Amino acid sequence: MKTIPGGVCAAKGFTANGVHCGIRKNHNKRDLALIASAVPAHAAAVYTTNLVKGAPLTVTKRHIADGTAQAIVCNSGNANTCNANGIEIAEQMSALTGAALGIVPENVIVASTGVIGQPLDIAPIEAGIPALAAGLAADGGAAAAEAIMTTDTVKKEVAVEFTLGGKTCRLGGIAKGSGMIHPNLATMLVFLTTDAAISAGMLQKALSTDVQSTFNMVSIDGDTSTNDMVAILANGMAGNAEITAEGADFTAFMQALNTVTVHLCRCIAADGEGATKLLECRVTGAKDVPTARTVAKSVVCSSLLKAAMFGADANWGRVLCAIGYSGADVDVTQVGVAFRSAKGTITVCENGAGVPFSEELAKEILLESEIEILVTVGAGSGSAAAWGCDLTYDYVKINGDYRT
Amino acid sequence: MKTIPGGVCAAKGFTANGVHCGIRKNHNKRDLALIASAVPAHAAAVYTTNLVKGAPLTVTKRHIADGTAQAIVCNSGNANTCNANGIEIAEQMSALTGAALGIVPENVIVASTGVIGQPLDIAPIEAGIPALAAGLAADGGAAAAEAIMTTDTVKKEVAVEFTLGGKTCRLGGIAKGSGMIHPNLATMLVFLTTDAAISAGMLQKALSTDVQSTFNMVSIDGDTSTNDMVAILANGMAGNAEITAEGADFTAFMQALNTVTVHLCRCIAADGEGATKLLECRVTGAKDVPTARTVAKSVVCSSLLKAAMFGADANWGRVLCAIGYSGADVDVTQVGVAFRSAKGTITVCENGAGVPFSEELAKEILLESEIEILVTVGAGSGSAAAWGCDLTYDYVKINGDYRT
Repeated sequence: MKTIPGGVCAAKGFTANGVHCGIRKNHNKRDLALIASAVPAHAAAVYTTNLVKGAPLTVTKRHIADGTAQAIVCNSGNANTCNANGIEIAEQMSALTGAALGIVPENVIVASTGVIGQPLDIAPIEAGIPALAAGLAADGGAAAAEAIMTTDTVKKEVAVEFTLGGKTCRLGGIAKGSGMIHPNLATMLVFLTTDAAISAGMLQKALSTDVQSTFNMVSIDGDTSTNDMVAILANGMAGNAEITAEGADFTAFMQALNTVTVHLCRCIAADGEGATKLLECRVTGAKDVPTARTVAKSVVCSSLLKAAMFGADANWGRVLCAIGYSGADVDVTQVGVAFRSAKGTITVCENGAGVPFSEELAKEILLESEIEILVTVGAGSGSAAAWGCDLTYDYVKINGDYRT
Repeated sequence: MKTIPGGVCAAKGFTANGVHCGIRKNHNKRDLALIASAVPAHAAAVYTTNLVKGAPLTVTKRHIADGTAQAIVCNSGNANTCNANGIEIAEQMSALTGAALGIVPENVIVASTGVIGQPLDIAPIEAGIPALAAGLAADGGAAAAEAIMTTDTVKKEVAVEFTLGGKTCRLGGIAKGSGMIHPNLATMLVFLTTDAAISAGMLQKALSTDVQSTFNMVSIDGDTSTNDMVAILANGMAGNAEITAEGADFTAFMQALNTVTVHLCRCIAADGEGATKLLECRVTGAKDVPTARTVAKSVVCSSLLKAAMFGADANWGRVLCAIGYSGADVDVTQVGVAFRSAKGTITVCENGAGVPFSEELAKEILLESEIEILVTVGAGSGSAAAWGCDLTYDYVKINGDYRT
């Protein structure tokens, strides 16, 4: 498997585009994205667990109930959530997109991200869709990645190439963060495309399984958004024998999917609102995987630890504290903690108590932009990773006055 | 019932003191507190739910297993947690205190707050206790309140006077916050004293019941500390007939207790690390009290809402979002939200959707230092309140470099 350029357009038969249609006041910010497949594709998606769900999610769920879709339309700047006419607007977005592409509205996946509770005006979207569709191109993935950004500071895209039964397949994706991000799912929108042939059922199974160890293990701020969605289209144009059951091909597909999703998870966490550092907590020795996941999530979610990481302060007591209140079944007298970065590794706690360490080396390690927090909790075989970021002045600044 | 001065020394027979013994480097910061009763008192306490528990909690639990204590000793600057010799040090603190007061060590409640995982040196405590005990005074409550402060910016004390069977009783307390605060309990230390006569069993019942709607409903940052403790001493010197069962006297006692604890909850939340505003979320119309509590807690815990309140931004979508992911059984199409302060009340959401409102008035209301977030979730009879604070630059500053 190798990483290739092209993002969401890397797979055969996919084009994309992103334009400024006027939902956002800033004319330099694209706010409407479109991804299209040359032929109908198998589709699967997972959604936020928040009881308050954005209208686009309800509409998308209905549209892909038959396992088929051919396009994804997404606006930024307005979440189309908690609005009386939200469903109607989301249906109109689908209809306008379908009309521009010559496909039925039911084959359109629709998504929105931005402010909650302000009616979404269809006018700019209606005005923008013709040019959006006309500009679809095989090199348009980056424009689409830009158009779905909100407080993101960098666009997030990746693609890989792999082989199924001798056929070259590609799988790529784009994602947006960067606040209101928390397991399970977040204001995280992720759109994935592949030319691999895989049945709708196996596609959903692959996605639902993968998110447990990837997007459900990312937290920026503990707030689970109303509009999260991870959607994948598989158009089969690679020409491999369709994957219809578990086996070597499904495993290879899962590996490609996981490579792409882990990359996007790291991108989302590193670009968390105000973040200066990517935090990765790796837990080993738990009695099982769910226990390891609970511990890893609790550590990357701790506001106190996140603030300490911002300050490059090896305050490992906050790691212990977060493990202790996680609810996981862990013997705290067995816990070990180390910090690792490009500058080295330093052990700060063994058997639940501090060990002497060099504050100078710890500082040097923690001043890096990617920090691993290595936690051992016993002799079990359960392990897990979770991703997060530091808590900074800029997170407060960004969220203190988001609407204006 | 009326509020009176004196704090933890308001009740008959209680004296207190606070000194600088040298645990902290700053010579102007008192770091060792002592509260004593003239006679043995009934004692009750509740503790953190964190699996990682400070050594002083283990020792205190053992000491008050018989329902009796006569003094409380507490240091700030070091949590005496995750240290190999923590129990030993906590026992030494009890023994030194007992020796200075002429009481058995088993009648001493011991507490610590500060950095986790750094050995606590007994030397400054040993050197400080004689002067600490010698200086016990009926006007020493404020000194004790100061000595338990960590990142607190103001000392927290209150007392009330009430009547039981014709006898005047008093109940007062001191508290410290102000970070690592989250249900259930936090690095919150609260010491309460009363001269009411009440059996140890009823005292524990009163305290355990009260904390469900008071200290368990306070959150500063979502981090449940390792060292939380709320302890109460009742020395019976008011001369009322001992409360040994539920009834009018117990109800009156509960009311006095609740008045003191709600006051201290508000003090702790208002003085949360970096806070500029006290947030109080009042939920009504839930199907039951636990549901109302879940909703209220989720709202005051949302980092996004807390940041919006710092910016005086009426971003009510974040209230809806927090309700939606709270896990509470709520019909989100029934939810209403209003903001209230000394400047007035403004309704921003009805039936789960936004209503037009004046942004100018909303801003004016939210610029106040005490904000109520009023949430209705239906027609049920369950209601609850939770307290928190805004998320500010200073929270990040305080916690980015706490240890140095």
